[in-house]
Amino acid sequence: MTSELERLFEHLRFASISTDSRHVADVRANAEWLVGQFEGMGMATEIHETPGNPIVIARNKHVGGRRTVLIYGHYDVQPVDPLELWDSAPFEPEIRDGKIWGRGGADNKGQHFVHMLGAEKTIREDGELPVNVIFLIEGEEEIGSPNLVPFLEEHRDELACDIIAVSDTGMVAPGVPTLGYGLRGITCLEVMVKGPTGDLHSGVYGGAVANPATAAARMVASLHEDDGKIAVDGFYDGVIPLENWEREMWAKVPGAADEDFLKTTGSPESFGEPGYSIAERLWGRPTIEVNGIGSGYQGEGSKTVLPAEAMFKLSCRLVPGQDPAMVQEKVEAHLRTHTPAGVTI
Amino acid sequence: MTSELERLFEHLRFASISTDSRHVADVRANAEWLVGQFEGMGMATEIHETPGNPIVIARNKHVGGRRTVLIYGHYDVQPVDPLELWDSAPFEPEIRDGKIWGRGGADNKGQHFVHMLGAEKTIREDGELPVNVIFLIEGEEEIGSPNLVPFLEEHRDELACDIIAVSDTGMVAPGVPTLGYGLRGITCLEVMVKGPTGDLHSGVYGGAVANPATAAARMVASLHEDDGKIAVDGFYDGVIPLENWEREMWAKVPGAADEDFLKTTGSPESFGEPGYSIAERLWGRPTIEVNGIGSGYQGEGSKTVLPAEAMFKLSCRLVPGQDPAMVQEKVEAHLRTHTPAGVTI
Repeated sequence: MTSELERLFEHLRFASISTDSRHVADVRANAEWLVGQFEGMGMATEIHETPGNPIVIARNKHVGGRRTVLIYGHYDVQPVDPLELWDSAPFEPEIRDGKIWGRGGADNKGQHFVHMLGAEKTIREDGELPVNVIFLIEGEEEIGSPNLVPFLEEHRDELACDIIAVSDTGMVAPGVPTLGYGLRGITCLEVMVKGPTGDLHSGVYGGAVANPATAAARMVASLHEDDGKIAVDGFYDGVIPLENWEREMWAKVPGAADEDFLKTTGSPESFGEPGYSIAERLWGRPTIEVNGIGSGYQGEGSKTVLPAEAMFKLSCRLVPGQDPAMVQEKVEAHLRTHTPAGVTI
Repeated sequence: MTSELERLFEHLRFASISTDSRHVADVRANAEWLVGQFEGMGMATEIHETPGNPIVIARNKHVGGRRTVLIYGHYDVQPVDPLELWDSAPFEPEIRDGKIWGRGGADNKGQHFVHMLGAEKTIREDGELPVNVIFLIEGEEEIGSPNLVPFLEEHRDELACDIIAVSDTGMVAPGVPTLGYGLRGITCLEVMVKGPTGDLHSGVYGGAVANPATAAARMVASLHEDDGKIAVDGFYDGVIPLENWEREMWAKVPGAADEDFLKTTGSPESFGEPGYSIAERLWGRPTIEVNGIGSGYQGEGSKTVLPAEAMFKLSCRLVPGQDPAMVQEKVEAHLRTHTPAGVTI
């Protein structure tokens, strides 16, 4: 094993689970390990305390007149449950079938460590980097980065830069360098549909008063046309159309043909807005997805209940030209117009 | 308190919860208490063992040439959770606001005990009952009476009768004697809607493959017209129309006007098959109700999941002229025709 790989494995051995307070010491140890790595590269390194987990900042010697690149990463990871689905221990990385298995390898320790190794090698071979570099590696990405924006605001001047590189995505295929130049935005809604004041017996009352589960289903169904197009009035307003060069480029991206996506997802066939390839739908078109729906009895067997309420959670993925607040307003207006008689939302 | 009421309270104090094996001794004690009551009335009483809870049979002296009436009841009760919603202990009956509060008072101890008191009084005053009577009080109604049919088959001859009286329903209003001459039947379906092989990230994959939660909602929505009529082809085939005399009689039943039902259910307005009053929909028309629907994330907050599957449970209430197997077949055929692209059921 190369010494670079050994160092990546050291990085992966920290159980830096930011959402679990039992791992707060692992998180801190991981941050301190990063400080040691950056110092070993000869970079000026600081560990910044926050109300949560520390942020590691490292910079080479900045020279006036050069461009400044900020490289973002995060050293915290997702929880590892359910443990029984792992073939090897999550924090004891190992190589199987040419792949590294270990929590955080692909999100995000592997990515930012590659940038660190690249900087290290250039410094070793050329004596310095051709640009001013700032590494910013935080420890709270997996819990929504609650302390990042306050930190950025406080250190706005020191962090001024020309380019930000965020390698927190994947490569479309092995060996294919991939530049992600946009990610869809999001706005979420949760809807409660209320009917009778309490659960009713569906034998005694079924058919006479509106069933909130049926009503919720009808509201969800009203969001799309049969062909997959979104039926919310004005939803596509302002959406910047895909450029021809984008569509042509995306069509050539390896691993991003419709068949590839179907293979990855295991879906029996593609379904979505007509007139677009899967890649175009995913990378350039807005959506409304049901993330959850629930009402009544969901256990084993049957229960003759007419539920008092139903819930559904929606998320809209947004693209340039859409305003989250406006989209939220339009979806809400649509749902109010499409609330069936006999229930309230 | 009258001695009759005291005896009803004794009956109500048994925690005869048939679904909970911790109460098996209470169930048996309750059956034995019933035996004592019937014997006190001078009736020939037997306690019949079953693989589950005992069945109590009591009969007066049968005389040839008279009609035989079988009176059915059950001494088992539903569980009492959640206990914190009770204002008094479920098995310590008490009278508040002119009502008896105690588990089983309305289902079914109160009802069959009234029949017992009626028989007792007639025997005391007239020396005998004018008809042959068989009381059959079982202890497994609340768990689907698994041992009742085998018992009936085994004792077919001894239980032969002209009339069966089942008082396991309610009165439409206080002081209004109520004869229920039919209850709707039932057939149930549970549908699993499958899309991708595993849950997907809705940001990465949303909009490209069919979402089983959306698909399930669309299938549920397809079951009814906007106005509440059932849209399943052939669903109403063979349904015997309501007779004019029934509609006229039902319109006069106290406590069964649309306003009364809305008050009972707390629903904001009536909703169902057009052209029928609530009472007519409930007592004479078939329905399809969603008893449960579930998919994706239903906890607090949001989770950007595109769920791999969705589930819904339906029950159809049936009326004379409908065959459960045929209805099941028609609903299933409808759902298969209305399964959106990109998912399987």
